[in-house]
Amino acid sequence: MLQSPPAVPGMREEEIDTPALVIDLDAFEYNLDHMAALLAPTGVKLRAHAKTHKSPVIAKLQMARGAVGQCVQKVSEAEVLAWGGIPDILVSNQIVGASKLARLCALSSITKAAVCVDDALQVDWVERAAADSGRRMTVLVEIDVGAARCGVPPGPAAVDLAKKIAASKHLIFGGLQAYQGSAQHKRTVSERQTLIGNAVDAARRTVEQLRQQGLDCPIVGGAGTGTFQIESVSGIYTEMQCGSYVFMDADYARNLDEAGKPISTFRHALFVLATVMSAPHAGLAVLDAGHKAVSTDSGMPTLWGKPDIRYVSASDEHGKLDVGSETTMPKLGEKLRLVPGHCDPTVDRHDWYVGVRGGRVESLWPVAARGGMA
Amino acid sequence: MLQSPPAVPGMREEEIDTPALVIDLDAFEYNLDHMAALLAPTGVKLRAHAKTHKSPVIAKLQMARGAVGQCVQKVSEAEVLAWGGIPDILVSNQIVGASKLARLCALSSITKAAVCVDDALQVDWVERAAADSGRRMTVLVEIDVGAARCGVPPGPAAVDLAKKIAASKHLIFGGLQAYQGSAQHKRTVSERQTLIGNAVDAARRTVEQLRQQGLDCPIVGGAGTGTFQIESVSGIYTEMQCGSYVFMDADYARNLDEAGKPISTFRHALFVLATVMSAPHAGLAVLDAGHKAVSTDSGMPTLWGKPDIRYVSASDEHGKLDVGSETTMPKLGEKLRLVPGHCDPTVDRHDWYVGVRGGRVESLWPVAARGGMA
Repeated sequence: MLQSPPAVPGMREEEIDTPALVIDLDAFEYNLDHMAALLAPTGVKLRAHAKTHKSPVIAKLQMARGAVGQCVQKVSEAEVLAWGGIPDILVSNQIVGASKLARLCALSSITKAAVCVDDALQVDWVERAAADSGRRMTVLVEIDVGAARCGVPPGPAAVDLAKKIAASKHLIFGGLQAYQGSAQHKRTVSERQTLIGNAVDAARRTVEQLRQQGLDCPIVGGAGTGTFQIESVSGIYTEMQCGSYVFMDADYARNLDEAGKPISTFRHALFVLATVMSAPHAGLAVLDAGHKAVSTDSGMPTLWGKPDIRYVSASDEHGKLDVGSETTMPKLGEKLRLVPGHCDPTVDRHDWYVGVRGGRVESLWPVAARGGMA
Repeated sequence: MLQSPPAVPGMREEEIDTPALVIDLDAFEYNLDHMAALLAPTGVKLRAHAKTHKSPVIAKLQMARGAVGQCVQKVSEAEVLAWGGIPDILVSNQIVGASKLARLCALSSITKAAVCVDDALQVDWVERAAADSGRRMTVLVEIDVGAARCGVPPGPAAVDLAKKIAASKHLIFGGLQAYQGSAQHKRTVSERQTLIGNAVDAARRTVEQLRQQGLDCPIVGGAGTGTFQIESVSGIYTEMQCGSYVFMDADYARNLDEAGKPISTFRHALFVLATVMSAPHAGLAVLDAGHKAVSTDSGMPTLWGKPDIRYVSASDEHGKLDVGSETTMPKLGEKLRLVPGHCDPTVDRHDWYVGVRGGRVESLWPVAARGGMA
């Protein structure tokens, strides 16, 4: 069931009902602007990843700052963006299943839609769906540039698949999907540079082999918030697919910069506001936000502005806080901001964003594609 | 946004769109019946926990087999059950916040609602909300019987709180909430017996001290799927609050019985059906179900009926499978059943239950209180 909004514009942050997904609008807008400023001199484009935010509102704010389109992982996400008016959407993922492909092709009448493949069978399936819909679909080849998840090997296998796409009546070869997911959270710059260096080499080699076969790559897409500053100056990638930069999270904040300090490229903009619902004795307080409100798959959330309080464990609806003896115990009913360990799955547990500026609620935006996993 | 149902009654399981939350209806009904049969000779009542299923449909099936009511953790869950016709609902948790308490008290016109407290301030807050609503609310005292989460210490502190409730004009003292959450997943019977033995002692001592003050405990509630066979014969607990027994999960399946074998009291009834969306090389297959479709906080999901395939890692929308060399590689497009590591948060990520029997879809039930965390 869609939940009702936890706030009304104009109310103070302390009045927001909890648990609530709160955006610090100043930090969020800083992130949007800063990404645009960082990419401008490189000439590469931003195709921001909507898997993070699941919101046509946020997609439009990204596009107003120059993003050329959006990435999604799922057809249901593509639908929500297309219905919300986003004109250019890449499903940066394989889509398997006739009904999903029919839905994706149907979107082509209202948006420019593209999809990835990593198997000849998928090419046949997309071709059939495109033919049935009477439209031509743009298809990219996903290559495995080191993450060992989806993707054909770089080089000849990718060329074969691209040729098959180009030879399919209702398909257009759109380029390469070359995302190195496992590099995003490597802590040191040198680790990230090594892994992305390999990805760049693999992508370059494949682009050259495609060119030898007369196949151009309009898109070479990849990169995430952890590594885009490497791919963006590679001379081979054309589109950056960063998602988390709009919000950041506790896990990305553990990445280190060249000086070995936590990265500070972007600001924390996403919080789960929670209430102290029990404070049974000194040192222990319990929040009303557990697994169902905040993701713990990349570590526990941290307390914003309260370094002496640790979120030590989550149960389904509770979060236990360990309160240092030097710190004032949070009071029963007090509201605290959590920095989620991992932003994407945290967002997906909520129906509403509550935008806050200067301590007041300014906006309510639906997490419009929440639960969209088909 | 509420997602559309992933299936239509009558279709074959292989036709269900994925990822989908699937109930094996035979196993599920076995679990409902078996719990009723296990508790019948003990004389204790079942107040099943709706935090697991979030569904008035399932609540009614439990009550048709003798459950006296339902537990919930959140007011939003209580609302969905009350609106769905459930006549007796205990919020087995503290509720902090005036608007939440007003909503809870408002439900008293259509259901019998009760709530827990572990602080004198909460008693004042519930009293004020009850007075404002013009109704009397039943309030239980939560005691900490060993889980070190919410709850006042057993004994005098609990008695003081109960006296304050009984002395409040619009409140009725309803008894004790005495749930030992940290015992539920202790692997051996002896560990669970030790912890629940302590909980029973603490509850008994508190009940006796209350009686000396003239305060009866109509409800002494607690227990979960891992331990109810201990509390139910304690002579002190009156209501069992088991939730997970309806579905089970991979984590509960790691609990051991007296013979040191995995417990077999209940059957696995809940699955996430997922599709092989990529199979880039021998030994590796990728499912379309990651963190957003299946909880990993209590370990990775397991593959139903496929012991030689391991779900080795989840990303947001992908699950990587390691396929043993002795096993036939799953085909692209093949659908596989995952046993979630943890049932409650997995359920909360989906909008629909797809009930399956004999390979066919028989029912579609909404996860009506999905996302209800306020």
